[in-house]
Amino acid sequence: MTGGVSEPARSQAAKRGRDLAERARAGERRPLARLLTEVEDRTPTGEAALRILYPLAGAAHLVGVTGAPGSGKSTLVAALVGEARRDGRRVAVLAIDPSSPITGGAILGDRVRMQAHAGDRDVFIRSMASRGHAGGLAAATVAAAAVFDAVGFPLVFIETVGTGQAEVEVAAIADTTVVVQAPEMGDEVQAIKAGLLEVADLVVVNKGDRPGAHRAAAQLRAMLTVGRQNDRVAAESGRPRPKRPDVLLATALSGEGVPELLAALDRREAARRAATDDGEVDATRLIRARAQLHGILGERVRARLAEPALEADTALLVRAVADHELDPYAAADRALDLLAGRSRVG
Amino acid sequence: MTGGVSEPARSQAAKRGRDLAERARAGERRPLARLLTEVEDRTPTGEAALRILYPLAGAAHLVGVTGAPGSGKSTLVAALVGEARRDGRRVAVLAIDPSSPITGGAILGDRVRMQAHAGDRDVFIRSMASRGHAGGLAAATVAAAAVFDAVGFPLVFIETVGTGQAEVEVAAIADTTVVVQAPEMGDEVQAIKAGLLEVADLVVVNKGDRPGAHRAAAQLRAMLTVGRQNDRVAAESGRPRPKRPDVLLATALSGEGVPELLAALDRREAARRAATDDGEVDATRLIRARAQLHGILGERVRARLAEPALEADTALLVRAVADHELDPYAAADRALDLLAGRSRVG
Repeated sequence: MTGGVSEPARSQAAKRGRDLAERARAGERRPLARLLTEVEDRTPTGEAALRILYPLAGAAHLVGVTGAPGSGKSTLVAALVGEARRDGRRVAVLAIDPSSPITGGAILGDRVRMQAHAGDRDVFIRSMASRGHAGGLAAATVAAAAVFDAVGFPLVFIETVGTGQAEVEVAAIADTTVVVQAPEMGDEVQAIKAGLLEVADLVVVNKGDRPGAHRAAAQLRAMLTVGRQNDRVAAESGRPRPKRPDVLLATALSGEGVPELLAALDRREAARRAATDDGEVDATRLIRARAQLHGILGERVRARLAEPALEADTALLVRAVADHELDPYAAADRALDLLAGRSRVG
Repeated sequence: MTGGVSEPARSQAAKRGRDLAERARAGERRPLARLLTEVEDRTPTGEAALRILYPLAGAAHLVGVTGAPGSGKSTLVAALVGEARRDGRRVAVLAIDPSSPITGGAILGDRVRMQAHAGDRDVFIRSMASRGHAGGLAAATVAAAAVFDAVGFPLVFIETVGTGQAEVEVAAIADTTVVVQAPEMGDEVQAIKAGLLEVADLVVVNKGDRPGAHRAAAQLRAMLTVGRQNDRVAAESGRPRPKRPDVLLATALSGEGVPELLAALDRREAARRAATDDGEVDATRLIRARAQLHGILGERVRARLAEPALEADTALLVRAVADHELDPYAAADRALDLLAGRSRVG
């Protein structure tokens, strides 16, 4: 089925994937870390593990937390983790790091702040590079979150630096998306520019003890009521939206407002569950499923074209494109015909 | 053929794409800028234009220039552009910007340095975000470079910040890859870590007037001779490599060593052409063609699944994945069967 992997290698991978999945489900941390790497790298072992784990997932609440650099989102996530731990919940954090050495430094600093939870075996923090994912960042994120979900983390935070389209895409796959704002007006404008407010379920004005924080929250509320920038994006993404995102104040460093934020997240998740139990289609989960399917599809297509039966024909197509005798769109259409033809024979 | 686009919209796009392609070939700058946007966004107009332009491309020398932040690669590219202009050559620069506001600032500074060429109609500088490309960054870069090539730019610089896998991939699609190093030893280590030296055809020690520059160049030469890290990567990528990359010294700010660098680039390109004229397969151009084909294939697959004939079945698959009744790998395999079945009928 999958090109380029021999049968013995395949059964070896299946065995290894099963083993990692079982040990991760038993609460072992190293197999879980290994498993996440395999899933992220889309190895046969990762695929085997995910195929076992995926049907066991679906129960966790995936919370996206994003915001401009300096908004204090990492500190807020750390505070939320602490709050959830007080309830005894196991918590996972998936931190999507831009793979730049410049921003990498900043994120390293953020990680240090999370060290309050370093000794806690019921907290698992995982950094993930934002680039270089064959099937796309969204697919890789969804897969990693499904692993956490299946091995018993009912609450998964997906933290991204809110600076671009990739972050908006990642925000769209979370059940609930929190956009963190610093009280300064400049940040508001930045978030709006990046389309972040448009994917927000909750907006948190962090550093609520600073002068101007209440004013910033009031301005945001007014803007979100009047502007309704949400409507267009919501319609396009097919995602049902609350009439407008709630705006909360919090001070991550002191913890003020954090219990209220976690309670608001829990309420939203309870409402989501009640709606789906009533048979309502969960559009966000459809988006998430589609991201996974699309990510894997591209890989499968490439793998099939690399199989012995199609390899030679594919090489001719690539050669024709390289020689500029065929444009890549025409070549892609012929490659699809090859795939279809092969299925007819086999 | 392509789902989601109606026939009138399609013929409209074809007309518009043809128009933009013709005007860009006639030397008009605005249509060229527009065309690059359409190609980058992979719109039907962009596709139509690229299908016309692609067979006209293949003559340009694509030069990748990469290096760690602070190595001075943008200044070096600006100096190379100036040198090529003295020969009367038209030059295009494709600057791949990480879409982070943090690094964005640095790159804005770089762009300012390029303003020496702002009034020159035979220089075209284009920035491209490094994220959010449906078909992948490599495919988008190759497509944009093909546009420059087809509209009459015989020399195209592709400038990337050399910080990660994405940059290595982009470097691998250039005909010739230049890795820029500052004379400080720290940078050398950084470049090796990122795998950049492994894709280098030429290594330039920039800021050659600084103390230690000659020593750094000598160290690099020794390391590249002894280490031969290149062999493994070259073997894996199937890319033929010169026995080892040349190491040159240059001072981009004063222009010293820049004519020699451009001459070295020209010599390499002449050798490449001679080899392919002798019937040698150009492995780099095959990599480039494959990147394009793969990028478009993923989109085509998604578009076909969205067509009326398959839409309902695809929706069922997505739903099953969303409900965790089917794992995404099994769903992807079923989707491929759908595609194959459809081709059998139609």
